[in-house]
Amino acid sequence: MSDGVVYLVGSGPGDPDLLTVKARRLIEEADVVLHDKLPGPSLDLVDDERAEDVGKRAGGERTPQEYTNRRLVELAEAGETVVRLKGGDPFVFGRGGEEMEHLAEHGIEFEVVPGVTAGVAGPGVAGIPVTHRDHNSSVSFVTGHEDPTKAESAVNWEALAATGGTIVVYMGVGKLPDYTAVLRDAGMAADTPVALVERGTWPEQRVAVGTLDDIVAVRDEVGIEPPAVTVIGPVAATRERVRAFLRSPYERPDTEE
Amino acid sequence: MSDGVVYLVGSGPGDPDLLTVKARRLIEEADVVLHDKLPGPSLDLVDDERAEDVGKRAGGERTPQEYTNRRLVELAEAGETVVRLKGGDPFVFGRGGEEMEHLAEHGIEFEVVPGVTAGVAGPGVAGIPVTHRDHNSSVSFVTGHEDPTKAESAVNWEALAATGGTIVVYMGVGKLPDYTAVLRDAGMAADTPVALVERGTWPEQRVAVGTLDDIVAVRDEVGIEPPAVTVIGPVAATRERVRAFLRSPYERPDTEE
Repeated sequence: MSDGVVYLVGSGPGDPDLLTVKARRLIEEADVVLHDKLPGPSLDLVDDERAEDVGKRAGGERTPQEYTNRRLVELAEAGETVVRLKGGDPFVFGRGGEEMEHLAEHGIEFEVVPGVTAGVAGPGVAGIPVTHRDHNSSVSFVTGHEDPTKAESAVNWEALAATGGTIVVYMGVGKLPDYTAVLRDAGMAADTPVALVERGTWPEQRVAVGTLDDIVAVRDEVGIEPPAVTVIGPVAATRERVRAFLRSPYERPDTEE
Repeated sequence: MSDGVVYLVGSGPGDPDLLTVKARRLIEEADVVLHDKLPGPSLDLVDDERAEDVGKRAGGERTPQEYTNRRLVELAEAGETVVRLKGGDPFVFGRGGEEMEHLAEHGIEFEVVPGVTAGVAGPGVAGIPVTHRDHNSSVSFVTGHEDPTKAESAVNWEALAATGGTIVVYMGVGKLPDYTAVLRDAGMAADTPVALVERGTWPEQRVAVGTLDDIVAVRDEVGIEPPAVTVIGPVAATRERVRAFLRSPYERPDTEE
């Protein structure tokens, strides 16, 4: 077995103050930090000479997962202490599971350092609790990358609607028209509150609130762009009720809905 | 408007190192820290003279939510800087939403400081990714407090089973026999992997892995007790595949499954 070790570390949603104490210490002490694009402003804590960006490559293409897997093994086998820094939590839509399995298959020791996930934190700082005793007993997190109109879509939107719980969609800006239509067809009420939180906890955070029926128009009017999470359910309306007293270090007042 | 402010702060799952940098600073600087029982070992950072325990009261009963709400307003109106410290994230089954609304209704300024939630972190440090591209495109978090055999149960277990995604049950030790039976009746396979993570990220963390069919027996054999989260889905089997190379600062080797 090698002497190196890989820490699979969640960076949190972006604000460097929302890194965990442990993540911050590991970033400071690591020999190498392999990072994606999503960590956002918290990346400023990583000095260039120890950083390796595996979120993009020369040609503008995405780095293949295989390259990242190989590089982690290579560095650990060379005895390095490696931080694999992933946006949010490493195991919430972060492919951390695949990297962990690859490390184990190659005999590399690893440790998991959970982080604050964007689907909870972005809505939270915007005054939207993803659960609320008055409204729901469950919350589901789902990826918005897949095409919900394809028959083989791995996401069962009808079942998600039937849970009666809040639905939080990660990376859900582009396909918003598709899955809101599928949820309407599944019987979800047109006036169900929906919120979009762009770059939650980043300095340029933006929030837009509407309903299942008009959120696509609201998105276009406000100009919401990726990365953003979508919150679907009665809790999305909470923001308007509390907003006058909500302190936020993140939002630009001139760009809100 | 008063000069006081309330910070609704998530403590993370228990390990003080999994507090966010911001939570740790706010705890150090606050005039008063109102806390529940669940923050676990991270509570050791709060010195006694600034701490108010609203997780229990003299007679052993739970402090009514109304008392906590009133106390937050009272302290803020007296000009205090208050940290309301909640286990995990304040908005994931934490009643933070209710407290936020109460503060807004009474004209108290507040800020939300998200935390690492136990339903992601506990499984994560035990080698269980709640999402995995090979297995699922969604994960649902649900409370296990409610009786799933009651007709008026707010949790739609059938719909959760139909999503095809991972199900993570908070506070799900006691009613494990009930909801595993409901999920079996809903058509979920008997050999679906299930894991229990007790006191995830606490020094005395314990983990037990089984299937939908035998997890109740495994729970009793290992002696899993609250607080614990239950993970239901193929990802729960990941642990056994990676465990030989998983570093964990938390587990007692003598008590594992």
